[in-house]
Amino acid sequence: MKCRNIGMAGKIAGVDNNPDHCREAIELQLVDEMLPLEAAVMQSEIIILAVPVGALVQLLPQVLDLVTTQVVIDMGSTKSMLTQLVQDHPHRGRFVAAHPMWGTEYSGPSAAVGNAFEQKAVILCDTAASDTDAVNIAKELFNGLSMRIIEMDAISHDLHAAYVSHISHITSFALANTVLEKEREDDAIFEMASAGFESTVRLAKSNPDMWTPILMQNRENVLDVLNEHISQLRKFKSCLEKENWEYLHELMSNANQIRRIIQ
Amino acid sequence: MKCRNIGMAGKIAGVDNNPDHCREAIELQLVDEMLPLEAAVMQSEIIILAVPVGALVQLLPQVLDLVTTQVVIDMGSTKSMLTQLVQDHPHRGRFVAAHPMWGTEYSGPSAAVGNAFEQKAVILCDTAASDTDAVNIAKELFNGLSMRIIEMDAISHDLHAAYVSHISHITSFALANTVLEKEREDDAIFEMASAGFESTVRLAKSNPDMWTPILMQNRENVLDVLNEHISQLRKFKSCLEKENWEYLHELMSNANQIRRIIQ
Repeated sequence: MKCRNIGMAGKIAGVDNNPDHCREAIELQLVDEMLPLEAAVMQSEIIILAVPVGALVQLLPQVLDLVTTQVVIDMGSTKSMLTQLVQDHPHRGRFVAAHPMWGTEYSGPSAAVGNAFEQKAVILCDTAASDTDAVNIAKELFNGLSMRIIEMDAISHDLHAAYVSHISHITSFALANTVLEKEREDDAIFEMASAGFESTVRLAKSNPDMWTPILMQNRENVLDVLNEHISQLRKFKSCLEKENWEYLHELMSNANQIRRIIQ
Repeated sequence: MKCRNIGMAGKIAGVDNNPDHCREAIELQLVDEMLPLEAAVMQSEIIILAVPVGALVQLLPQVLDLVTTQVVIDMGSTKSMLTQLVQDHPHRGRFVAAHPMWGTEYSGPSAAVGNAFEQKAVILCDTAASDTDAVNIAKELFNGLSMRIIEMDAISHDLHAAYVSHISHITSFALANTVLEKEREDDAIFEMASAGFESTVRLAKSNPDMWTPILMQNRENVLDVLNEHISQLRKFKSCLEKENWEYLHELMSNANQIRRIIQ
């Protein structure tokens, strides 16, 4: 809806394999009409690919085969595999690799939130491989949505994404499993679960169909971060085992420096 | 303020060692006046102890020495050590052990939030050891604040608190340290940090002076949960190492069941 408001979309066509999602998208007025992929690509000037990254590696080459002067922008959470995949495609220049840093644990048309992207960051990757006019159109779009544009190469993107997004999901999934494993017989936890708990396990509601391919494509970075995270947790464990309260305090004081990053 | 609104407090006296906090509490109209501990205890009918649990084990016996017919209610995050400590105190009956399941990563008078407790759970522990009139007054207070009262023994409380609160803090502190360790040279993370990341590391801003004694007092339960959590994380690590995407998907699907506990 917001693309309409900023004059970047006269008409919006949607494409979705799921008939329920097609109906919802129309009902929620997210799109003007639903079309088959090829028809939608032919009629459009800007094509936004917002599918799980496992599907994206199938879809992007297919769409690039169809385009001539259109601009194709993806919304995927991983970038290295995708950009490598299409690096020699004759229409590579029409593609702009983008990752808007916003999402929730929900998916599908009903998970859409108006103005969600406002003031959020969007990462544009390897823009030198895109045609200048395509990059400018993508920037106009994201600027129009009041996003902060950050440019970096796809390899750096995937490394940083492992830290600021992918590891958070793994810790949240693992925390949920920890609690479900131990507390399966007990209702107390339902009653006691507080805002702090909810905050740390919220992401555990995320869709495995979306997250399996993200972790698959960013496997090496995620493994590095996960190893580091487990070793950080072992420091806490060691403090508790050895009753080293001074070092425990120090670990937590150090963690407080995260205030530099989040408000 | 809310205690006033529900007619449970004609006058509210505060006690605090920190002169800045005393000034703030008056300025924010959280209290009518600041008094020395003994004077405040003498003049009050209901005494609320809201201090870090390390200070609580000093303060509670001291306050119980002073009381006659007053009701003393604590707000601590751990309960076993505290209730054991005062189990033979001649005024044990005047004490009601309570843990309201609400808090933020901030502390001090300026962290107060009006109506924060509304619809939240409050755990009352070992109420059989408290005088009936004291328990009734505590219940009247928490009911007046629209809280959900749950009763359990102190040992069960500490076990469940390890799952629904204490482990969340450790994972959050450790995640913050993971990111700070690896990304110290890089500004990218500042720009990219999104709502999902913020949600999982928010608790890492919590005060180490408050959390060291909580983890100290609940050491054994927290160690059990932390060991389980590390072994759950290792399952994710093993999936990534062995590229076992089917099992990774299964681990995340299982974690989705946390929807039973949080909305």
